[in-house]
Amino acid sequence: MSKIIETVPNFSEGRRVEVIREIVEAVGKTPGARILDISSDADHNRSVLTLAGNEEQVRASVLKLFEAAIARIDLRNHRGEHPRLGAVDVVPFVPVKEATMADCVRLARSVGEEIAGRFGVPVYLYEEAATAEHRRNLADIRRGEFEGLARKMKDPLWAPDFGPEEPHSSAGATVVGAREFLIAFNVNLGTPDVEIAERIARAVRHSSGGFRYCKAMGVVLSERRIAQVSINMVNFKKTPLHRVVEMIKTEAARFGVNVVGSEIVGLVPNDALLSAAEFYLRLEGFDPSQVLENRLAEPGT
Amino acid sequence: MSKIIETVPNFSEGRRVEVIREIVEAVGKTPGARILDISSDADHNRSVLTLAGNEEQVRASVLKLFEAAIARIDLRNHRGEHPRLGAVDVVPFVPVKEATMADCVRLARSVGEEIAGRFGVPVYLYEEAATAEHRRNLADIRRGEFEGLARKMKDPLWAPDFGPEEPHSSAGATVVGAREFLIAFNVNLGTPDVEIAERIARAVRHSSGGFRYCKAMGVVLSERRIAQVSINMVNFKKTPLHRVVEMIKTEAARFGVNVVGSEIVGLVPNDALLSAAEFYLRLEGFDPSQVLENRLAEPGT
Repeated sequence: MSKIIETVPNFSEGRRVEVIREIVEAVGKTPGARILDISSDADHNRSVLTLAGNEEQVRASVLKLFEAAIARIDLRNHRGEHPRLGAVDVVPFVPVKEATMADCVRLARSVGEEIAGRFGVPVYLYEEAATAEHRRNLADIRRGEFEGLARKMKDPLWAPDFGPEEPHSSAGATVVGAREFLIAFNVNLGTPDVEIAERIARAVRHSSGGFRYCKAMGVVLSERRIAQVSINMVNFKKTPLHRVVEMIKTEAARFGVNVVGSEIVGLVPNDALLSAAEFYLRLEGFDPSQVLENRLAEPGT
Repeated sequence: MSKIIETVPNFSEGRRVEVIREIVEAVGKTPGARILDISSDADHNRSVLTLAGNEEQVRASVLKLFEAAIARIDLRNHRGEHPRLGAVDVVPFVPVKEATMADCVRLARSVGEEIAGRFGVPVYLYEEAATAEHRRNLADIRRGEFEGLARKMKDPLWAPDFGPEEPHSSAGATVVGAREFLIAFNVNLGTPDVEIAERIARAVRHSSGGFRYCKAMGVVLSERRIAQVSINMVNFKKTPLHRVVEMIKTEAARFGVNVVGSEIVGLVPNDALLSAAEFYLRLEGFDPSQVLENRLAEPGT
């Protein structure tokens, strides 16, 4: 079976529908990775593509995306709520099937070098592909945004991993890396009080003392008049969904609040849900090869 | 994508290793369904094969199994704890992928007729393929076993659906039908008291007032010195795993006993576990197409 890698490139256009369409079409028309999902946000002025394929397919699709995006996006005229450094802002590679994290690190470095060489865009490597600890975290690399980039790059700590020592005039810089699958997961509370959601978020998120692979913030769903803990699970194998849900239930109970529901935004790996079932059903000695569909997918016996 | 049907033929040999090997080899050598699992029990003197393939593949494999089993098994010399009517005792067809229950009913009737014609074995249709309500339940058809079969068949209520009006001298009769996927699921209790397991089994099983698609009994795991509720989930779509587990926890608590674990014996459909995850994580608006592996399996976009 061939390796499958996912890539989730974010590009800095979420408003001009025609431009988004042209970029997505350019990616889709080229032989390469399959487009699994497209999501654009006008407030953020940003779009996110989810692509999957083997190494050469995702490489080809990402290069095509750069070609189309750099020709159409000028950061000098770009405004949006989401922080960004470049026309194509960030390109993570994610191991999905048969592929390892080492495969994705190697691919990130090779594609990063190719982007820098072909398009003259400085490239930073992040997360598992980072070349120094201080540039592992995307938020740290992106701090200062496009507008502060020329100055930031004068600091030797922030010399790019590949490409020119100054920003591309219209396309800025790009952050390329390798990471685990990210699950966007929201937990809805039986209260409109966002302060409770924020306090629960602080209890479960890594940055304020919570679970290592959990990011979280409190938000309000104004239409439903309820508060929500909005979560990114950045490594569901090491910090599983069920542990965060159970902790949120416990913290919410302290305020007399119930968890009324949850939602997965976008895609979720099957294993993340099987692991929740295994925990809650208290399964002993469960082996994924007991799943009928897995057994059917095995080479013939 | 082509239809996949599972069949789980039970044949009446669980002791003579050489005979089991010959029968399994005869099935495996013929082009037909893939063998997913083989399980033999000496006390029961019975073996269970799990096969999967398209309609023609499972048909070919089942016919080959009859040929090999009838040549080697003589019920007149067969003893075992498990009730049985025939050399090949029961052959259920189960819809697994793309296939419907109607497909399996049609297949059961057609294969049943072919078996009767080719091997001179009377065939009863059961469960979804049954032709009368009183012969839907396997236990009712099998009551009296091989030894009582000749007398039972004189009753017009028990005329076979296909084949001769009397038993095959050495191979008895066969029960062929269509049913939903059966999950063998055991729940372990923090007590060695089998009476508690038996009382909990009575609370959850259909026959004594419990869930419609749940069969259960209390047993003892002598090595681990704990009691167990041993369960067959005969329709996990209508009676889901989580509901039975939660009921067992509640009933066990009434005796001051904990559920210490559970186990799935053999295979389980992925959907049965996803549905448990969906319940326990309280997912709202979850769609199976959000599962990454399902998205990857969809036709290209």
